[in-house]
Amino acid sequence: MGQFARETAIEQIGDNHFRGVLCEGWRIGAVPNGGYVLAIAGRALRAALPHKDPLTVSAFYLSPTGLGPIDCRVELLGSGRSTSFAEVKMYQQGELKVKVTAAYTDLDKLSGETWSADDRPQYPAWEQCVPPPDKGLEFRDRAEMRLVSGADVFNRGTPDGSGAFCGWVRHSDGADPDVIGLLMFADAFPPPVFTVFGPVGWVPTVELTVQVRAHPSPGPLQVRLASRFMTKGVIEEDGEYWDSAGQLVAISRQTAKVRLRKD
Amino acid sequence: MGQFARETAIEQIGDNHFRGVLCEGWRIGAVPNGGYVLAIAGRALRAALPHKDPLTVSAFYLSPTGLGPIDCRVELLGSGRSTSFAEVKMYQQGELKVKVTAAYTDLDKLSGETWSADDRPQYPAWEQCVPPPDKGLEFRDRAEMRLVSGADVFNRGTPDGSGAFCGWVRHSDGADPDVIGLLMFADAFPPPVFTVFGPVGWVPTVELTVQVRAHPSPGPLQVRLASRFMTKGVIEEDGEYWDSAGQLVAISRQTAKVRLRKD
Repeated sequence: MGQFARETAIEQIGDNHFRGVLCEGWRIGAVPNGGYVLAIAGRALRAALPHKDPLTVSAFYLSPTGLGPIDCRVELLGSGRSTSFAEVKMYQQGELKVKVTAAYTDLDKLSGETWSADDRPQYPAWEQCVPPPDKGLEFRDRAEMRLVSGADVFNRGTPDGSGAFCGWVRHSDGADPDVIGLLMFADAFPPPVFTVFGPVGWVPTVELTVQVRAHPSPGPLQVRLASRFMTKGVIEEDGEYWDSAGQLVAISRQTAKVRLRKD
Repeated sequence: MGQFARETAIEQIGDNHFRGVLCEGWRIGAVPNGGYVLAIAGRALRAALPHKDPLTVSAFYLSPTGLGPIDCRVELLGSGRSTSFAEVKMYQQGELKVKVTAAYTDLDKLSGETWSADDRPQYPAWEQCVPPPDKGLEFRDRAEMRLVSGADVFNRGTPDGSGAFCGWVRHSDGADPDVIGLLMFADAFPPPVFTVFGPVGWVPTVELTVQVRAHPSPGPLQVRLASRFMTKGVIEEDGEYWDSAGQLVAISRQTAKVRLRKD
């Protein structure tokens, strides 16, 4: 079992009540990464629902989490033949921290047309990409990243103005990604606004929605995370995720607030 | 008071309990438009929360709604200085139909940088655009539309393959849009997949998230609704909405299922 699977494991405490533990290794500053927290909700949903794969998962981040136990209370909302719905409330010390709503399905049973308006972007392979400079970010010990564009702001302190980071991400222990891992990887790249304003400070997530499309093949995930519109400090971050076989496996969008660092 | 305001009005029934009525005029086939239903949730949230403007609103559509009363049970989740959170469960005849989670704020009090990666697309003015052919869609009696691209599939039966509809939308009675109206307009354009496969049939929404950025100026809204990735019948629809003053007022994304019509 890989580190991610171990550190997102849940135990059942009661009826639709599960407990996970926010572990060291996943923090950005003092706060566990929002995608990592979402993955624990994803496990609780999988345990509670008749369908086992996330189709669409939406999380609202009410208050920052901290290390330690996190209680997941699942409420089933409805279930049909192909899709079931539930919400999860995540508590620490009795305080509601994160609220998740989800539709789950069996991805392998989806039937229908497949179409794409754009080809997958062609990136140099993982092995050809240089690791970003070590910024002492604990989270990078778990979600290892290679950038193919946008890296200038980290390497040379010069934002390229693009509003996008492109590159690769994988579990640092080499474990293969699964659909629950996609929920974490959907929040694993740095805020694209850094490519415009530099590493501006703190960009807390208000809400994150992940659409999962397929079980990823083994290997690193190809990622494009981009922002296009910032309005008075409110910004969206749109992510696209392909597996090593070239298949689109997820898309994501979050609402974040850009808190400029006071220099 | 305009038709939209009247037909999304709610009355308070009890503590955090509100009732609206799904009115004739807003249906697509037999089912009230999902954005219209969301707008009623938006009114209940506004009534219950200390902050009055939607910042991010996410709805899961569990079961189709019908005409008549709809009960909105609001649960407050948390509140900070600038943002408050709540969920709404929407019931008809005791059945949970729609589940909404939201962050509300005071849009006029947002402070921070504004930036855009792209310029607003330039469309011919509303008056220069031809109304689409009447398809007998009841909803078009309320949300009047002009298309500037993608219309060939309706006008000549030939999909242009773009995956996007661009154009304008407004309340048909000429009422000016407000932030609650944006929740409805975020589901007011036809499915962009029609520009690829033709009017394929039924494209039910699983989940719809709207990010509101500003109070719209009077006049029609400029809209671009696009899809890029359909995976075995699961598709996203991404919307961008500008007001008549050229200001981005909202973005939206939904997860939908594409049910091909059996010919």
